[in-house]
Amino acid sequence: MKKHNFNSGPSILPQTVLEQAAQAIMEFNNTGLSLLEIGHRTTYFMEALAEARALVRELMDLDDSYEVLFLHGGATTQFMQVPMNLLDTNETAAYCDNGIWGNKALKEASLFGNVNVVASSKDKNHTYINKGFDIPADAKYLHITTNNTVEGTQWHHIPDTNVPIVADMSSDIFSRPLDYKKFALIYAGAQKNMGAAGVNLVVVKKDILGKITRPIPSIMDYAKHIAADSLMNTPPVFAVYVALLTLRWIKAEGGLEEMGKRNLEKSNLLYQTLDSLPIFTPTVAKEDRSQMNAVFVLTNPAHEAPFLELCKERGMVGVKGYRTVGGIRVSMYNALALESVQIFCDLMHEFAASVS
Amino acid sequence: MKKHNFNSGPSILPQTVLEQAAQAIMEFNNTGLSLLEIGHRTTYFMEALAEARALVRELMDLDDSYEVLFLHGGATTQFMQVPMNLLDTNETAAYCDNGIWGNKALKEASLFGNVNVVASSKDKNHTYINKGFDIPADAKYLHITTNNTVEGTQWHHIPDTNVPIVADMSSDIFSRPLDYKKFALIYAGAQKNMGAAGVNLVVVKKDILGKITRPIPSIMDYAKHIAADSLMNTPPVFAVYVALLTLRWIKAEGGLEEMGKRNLEKSNLLYQTLDSLPIFTPTVAKEDRSQMNAVFVLTNPAHEAPFLELCKERGMVGVKGYRTVGGIRVSMYNALALESVQIFCDLMHEFAASVS
Repeated sequence: MKKHNFNSGPSILPQTVLEQAAQAIMEFNNTGLSLLEIGHRTTYFMEALAEARALVRELMDLDDSYEVLFLHGGATTQFMQVPMNLLDTNETAAYCDNGIWGNKALKEASLFGNVNVVASSKDKNHTYINKGFDIPADAKYLHITTNNTVEGTQWHHIPDTNVPIVADMSSDIFSRPLDYKKFALIYAGAQKNMGAAGVNLVVVKKDILGKITRPIPSIMDYAKHIAADSLMNTPPVFAVYVALLTLRWIKAEGGLEEMGKRNLEKSNLLYQTLDSLPIFTPTVAKEDRSQMNAVFVLTNPAHEAPFLELCKERGMVGVKGYRTVGGIRVSMYNALALESVQIFCDLMHEFAASVS
Repeated sequence: MKKHNFNSGPSILPQTVLEQAAQAIMEFNNTGLSLLEIGHRTTYFMEALAEARALVRELMDLDDSYEVLFLHGGATTQFMQVPMNLLDTNETAAYCDNGIWGNKALKEASLFGNVNVVASSKDKNHTYINKGFDIPADAKYLHITTNNTVEGTQWHHIPDTNVPIVADMSSDIFSRPLDYKKFALIYAGAQKNMGAAGVNLVVVKKDILGKITRPIPSIMDYAKHIAADSLMNTPPVFAVYVALLTLRWIKAEGGLEEMGKRNLEKSNLLYQTLDSLPIFTPTVAKEDRSQMNAVFVLTNPAHEAPFLELCKERGMVGVKGYRTVGGIRVSMYNALALESVQIFCDLMHEFAASVS
């Protein structure tokens, strides 16, 4: 039976990326060796890394005032690394508290300096994105999570401010065209739209670095990674290579314009179906719905178990809500075909008919 | 032409591990999904992680006073993470300065507390291992690098001391039987004997944790990783799985006893050849030679380029010395067959005959 992969992460990747990755493990680039067995300072790998870095800048339309790094770890590593590099002990950073992950980020930041929670959607269980809040001009930076994977919300308008914006884009990186110049630092832990888990993408405007007094351990220091061309130590070679394959796929498919078009089409279909069937109840404010993760509940809680069972029977993988939240979550990352969403929507209709 | 992979790292892996890793990327465990696409909290992955952790303890013959963690990053990450967890600002740690990597480790530690360099082989370019040095009883821990990849030295006797020993085993992990109970903390960044780059193995005696006052960022906190069963955030799934495949291979081949036997046989062959041919000059004190990395020079420097050229012609990969050291370095990790060492030794003889 064909599986439809709605996993929230690690999640679906393009089939062609998987095939090329498997091939590279058997033999990389006619070297007679596996990708896992070649030195990271060989031309082979250094070219792959350089291509991946260049593709990120190209897809986001950023000039060379930005640097692109591929670093060890996941977004949780960046929760620490961002304030360690940007926030001095007596300074204040502005954080938006719009979900589980953003909340973890601000807690880690509080170990390094002062955190000012300038907006929070906690009053309504993080089911919306704050708008029109004040951003103190002296904040060192403003931290937002552009897509809240667990709660199913997404920022559709990036605030206009002179305060440098730091964004965790782990779950909507490369999913849509945006004015990426509005950001001073973008980070994204794999694995959602970008490749294998175990690598962080960090895109940083160079002029925000070097402005704190704290000594930074080498492996955490963005400036040192830039000086070392993102090759300070043995990088997560395989994860970087899968990121490259994914970036090539995105470009070949038409770049972020095309990804944005497809993701809009998929999420429109899903949300229209959701709104048309009273047995399902959306949990998120309409204008803040995520194109990546649709979160909803069964209007009658007794319907949840049989619906999940039906999904399982039909090969729908990963549609159960986050372990602390419950309900249903349907993740529709770049590599998920419209067809899978259509089949899921058909199933929603079928289930609705069966219980009415 | 068959390649003989003497890379210092990333380096050779067992062929069967590569085949199983490639297969898992196409489909993992009859799930209908790739290993790269499954959630890290699925039974499939959690079982793999638990098996890998158990195998480490079994191979090292350690009881449950030790915990086994698979964490993001490389050894360079541990250079910071060890003192962050173990060394308070006013405390002192003892470090042995026996090579490039150990030297980097002690520099990072100095950002967190006091570093007492209790032994250094810098006077002779790190070509030997210090012995019989004093370890102050009040040192928080003693840090050694059991195998110096760049310089080709290895600790063949682990010091007897009441001070907790912290060891960087990145380049000789799982290569020999040892009394692993002598260590309070062992870390090893992949990729040498353990699998794909992008994961750190940390084996820690639990009773050394929780003794400092510094707040530790979550992602760096060993105790929090233990509490989360090594699954605090999305781990480097693929690298952990390749580590598991390698650990299974080591066990199936006969465990650390067998690895030690093979590595001794390979390195004896190499060093005997080296000692028998005056056109080569070993650079390392005889009693401290590494079984993993044999480092030497051509007695006549003019012979180096033609020797390296001959190696290249015959498919010998990765025999050039470290970029800041030069000369020749032959790495003979677990997965390297005796046959490859034999062929390399034949080539040394052939070259010696051709220039004499």
